[in-house]
Amino acid sequence: VEDYEMALNPAAESEIRSIIEGWAHAVRTRDSKAIASHLAPHVVIFDLINPLQYKGPDDAHQRATEWLSSFKEDPHYEIRDLAIFATEAIAHCHSLNHVNGVTTSGQKIDMWWRATVCFHKHNGQWLVVHEHSSIPMDPSTGKASLDLKP
Amino acid sequence: VEDYEMALNPAAESEIRSIIEGWAHAVRTRDSKAIASHLAPHVVIFDLINPLQYKGPDDAHQRATEWLSSFKEDPHYEIRDLAIFATEAIAHCHSLNHVNGVTTSGQKIDMWWRATVCFHKHNGQWLVVHEHSSIPMDPSTGKASLDLKP
Repeated sequence: VEDYEMALNPAAESEIRSIIEGWAHAVRTRDSKAIASHLAPHVVIFDLINPLQYKGPDDAHQRATEWLSSFKEDPHYEIRDLAIFATEAIAHCHSLNHVNGVTTSGQKIDMWWRATVCFHKHNGQWLVVHEHSSIPMDPSTGKASLDLKP
Repeated sequence: VEDYEMALNPAAESEIRSIIEGWAHAVRTRDSKAIASHLAPHVVIFDLINPLQYKGPDDAHQRATEWLSSFKEDPHYEIRDLAIFATEAIAHCHSLNHVNGVTTSGQKIDMWWRATVCFHKHNGQWLVVHEHSSIPMDPSTGKASLDLKP
């Protein structure tokens, strides 16, 4: 091999794309179990909010449940600029994600964030070994920039 | 192949580790050119601060120069929990990074952030195709959590 272009695998890319589309559908239908699917037992997650990191699918499932139950109705959700780099056994992707909805307390949420996801194929199945989601900081205020648009 | 454990390549892992160590040395010596080395022409960067994303090594070099020139002296810098997943032609890694120093205006900086880096091998050289650095948000204040420790 020696060069990534020879290592890229279109079938693997298509499998990763299906997983990403499945997660998007899971956000739109507030299915927290499906959002936390495909996570490796040892997944390391850098999330939008504190702490610095956490590990494992159980915490991810609980956080997804809390997040989705904060919406009054199913939110709008879109993924933009999705780039997938998939070889036969290892893959990564990144995208800009956008959620738009109203919380149970009536607050309007309309925000973009950055997402990077790293996968391994294990026993014929793609598993997420690492997820990184974030909002950049505005250095003049120290606040997360919740109003950026791509 | 079919399974990532068979795809993992110790020589590749060692090459990636050298690049990471080189960057750490570059931060400690405020060598912004070396910090922006190994970036692919089309690298997509999700940085600690605004905007949502930017592209290309020139912007990365300029940002590194601005950041490093904000320190009065060479800062202390360490990388913790570095995990590398490297195959022959594609790799990714993640870590917690810590900088500790004093700015030219006398402000003490002592902060941890999360870093994820994705690589491709192209013409025998590892190139960064994607970098994601961030600080999580404290949802109760909307601020970036600059005081977290691992």
